[in-house]
Amino acid sequence: MEKFEIHILGCGAALPTPKRLSSSQIVNIREKLFMLDCAEGTQMALRRSHLSFSHLQAIFLTHLHGDHVFGLIGMLSTFGLLGRIQDLHIYGPQDLTRIFQPQIDYFCADSPYKIILHEIDTKTSQILYEDRSVTITSLPLSHRVPCCGYLFQEKPTPRHIRRDMIDFHHIPVSQINNIKAGMDWITDDGTIIPNDRLTTPPDPVRSYAYCTDTTYRPALAKLLQNITCLYHEATFAQEHALLAKKTHHSTAAQAAQIALDAHAGKLILGHFSSRYKSEDILLQEAQQIFSHTLLAEDGMKIEL
Amino acid sequence: MEKFEIHILGCGAALPTPKRLSSSQIVNIREKLFMLDCAEGTQMALRRSHLSFSHLQAIFLTHLHGDHVFGLIGMLSTFGLLGRIQDLHIYGPQDLTRIFQPQIDYFCADSPYKIILHEIDTKTSQILYEDRSVTITSLPLSHRVPCCGYLFQEKPTPRHIRRDMIDFHHIPVSQINNIKAGMDWITDDGTIIPNDRLTTPPDPVRSYAYCTDTTYRPALAKLLQNITCLYHEATFAQEHALLAKKTHHSTAAQAAQIALDAHAGKLILGHFSSRYKSEDILLQEAQQIFSHTLLAEDGMKIEL
Repeated sequence: MEKFEIHILGCGAALPTPKRLSSSQIVNIREKLFMLDCAEGTQMALRRSHLSFSHLQAIFLTHLHGDHVFGLIGMLSTFGLLGRIQDLHIYGPQDLTRIFQPQIDYFCADSPYKIILHEIDTKTSQILYEDRSVTITSLPLSHRVPCCGYLFQEKPTPRHIRRDMIDFHHIPVSQINNIKAGMDWITDDGTIIPNDRLTTPPDPVRSYAYCTDTTYRPALAKLLQNITCLYHEATFAQEHALLAKKTHHSTAAQAAQIALDAHAGKLILGHFSSRYKSEDILLQEAQQIFSHTLLAEDGMKIEL
Repeated sequence: MEKFEIHILGCGAALPTPKRLSSSQIVNIREKLFMLDCAEGTQMALRRSHLSFSHLQAIFLTHLHGDHVFGLIGMLSTFGLLGRIQDLHIYGPQDLTRIFQPQIDYFCADSPYKIILHEIDTKTSQILYEDRSVTITSLPLSHRVPCCGYLFQEKPTPRHIRRDMIDFHHIPVSQINNIKAGMDWITDDGTIIPNDRLTTPPDPVRSYAYCTDTTYRPALAKLLQNITCLYHEATFAQEHALLAKKTHHSTAAQAAQIALDAHAGKLILGHFSSRYKSEDILLQEAQQIFSHTLLAEDGMKIEL
């Protein structure tokens, strides 16, 4: 299967520590890299990950709280010093330009590449990026400030050719794409060879959603049906459910409920409050509702 | 002797790496902490140092290049989340307010403490801070943008009482401060006991200067005469002397020449270009001119 990996660069909540950065991730789809949020220290974590800086296509910011954006200007500046020339597109909620354009103008004035800011409407779901292998769509979330998640969906790929059958029936190269697309083959004597004898099924279409920060939002599950892997914030344990509501965050159990309702393949919990000595309580509370749950940790790589 | 320590949080040049942050230090004088520059990652390094966040009195920025300031907004935000209520004064060159006030207004709007920005004229040397134990003075430097260093000078302390002699001569408590200040004692029968029989000399007055970023500036040595410890940038080795001049930085040899001309007690080299696999070449070139030279490294503590 083609590469579709998630690299967790940071998964803490507001307070970064030497052990855990605040929010930042890389989605690697066929060596095209997409960044989700950019907390302070992201550029150092990116170096540690050994991912190529120059393969970064775009950055998607969920919202303009410091623990999701304070690493942006430093990283942009570093890209300039390293001689990046490729345009870099940055997506984020309203105020993105007002807050970051002056910083970019001041600190990246000599940068040899262009930074293009895109403010998005966080109240609706919309396609932001599309190439021949992936679609990236925003997902409305509910937080104290305008905020959205992001959904990565692979495009369906063609069926796989069975080389032995192609040879056996002497099917010409010019017909291969039609066969991959599902067409049957008719031999010279008029026999129909059904496509499923010439091909094997395509790779399953995979998807990933990054949902942080948000209060519990049941409607989200409808947008995430059959998602391969869901990252959902789980700032608090059940004992702090009221605090979660008040601060517009989710509990681990609420994250699990979304995964369950979405028939997700896997749930990754993140954005842990630093109040918990161990996040095991969050894992346990989520697994009671949705068993295929794991805890994010800095430096973790998930292959979809 | 009272505490006078330097903590190197970061000593790299423009490109931060997981191994080495860009510029940031703490000067600890009798548990009052003063920060010098604030590169990205400074708040995490400060946690690692186990210094108390709440003892931070003021921040002094040399200039507004990213590798000296990108950690500021994140750290200020964290102080707010941790409930700091004490005012925090930040000193830096022109544009400090224009660049940072909008960020502070946006990201630290709910912070329970006051941040006061002070723009300073980097062309003259002026006293910026004074308490009963220390004076902090700016030092004009020459870089591509307005830039200054900072000089920390202990104030002279009183002589030390010799307890045995005070008891022997029955000198009353009311006179102790006069004796510490250097006064002789006259006994009831008119005998003069000279002060140096009642006291031992005061602790030597110590000083520290932080000089980065700057081109070689011979006049600087005059402001640093008999300095206890000098931190001077040494971005480049001799082979890149022309590049140093062009980018308004110094070579290790030039840093050593300043230390020699200032009759410094000790020289610490820092702000190393990431182009050198090992900084030993910088150390060697400096030691040929000034032997009491050492290389800064992240996490290093120097006791004066």
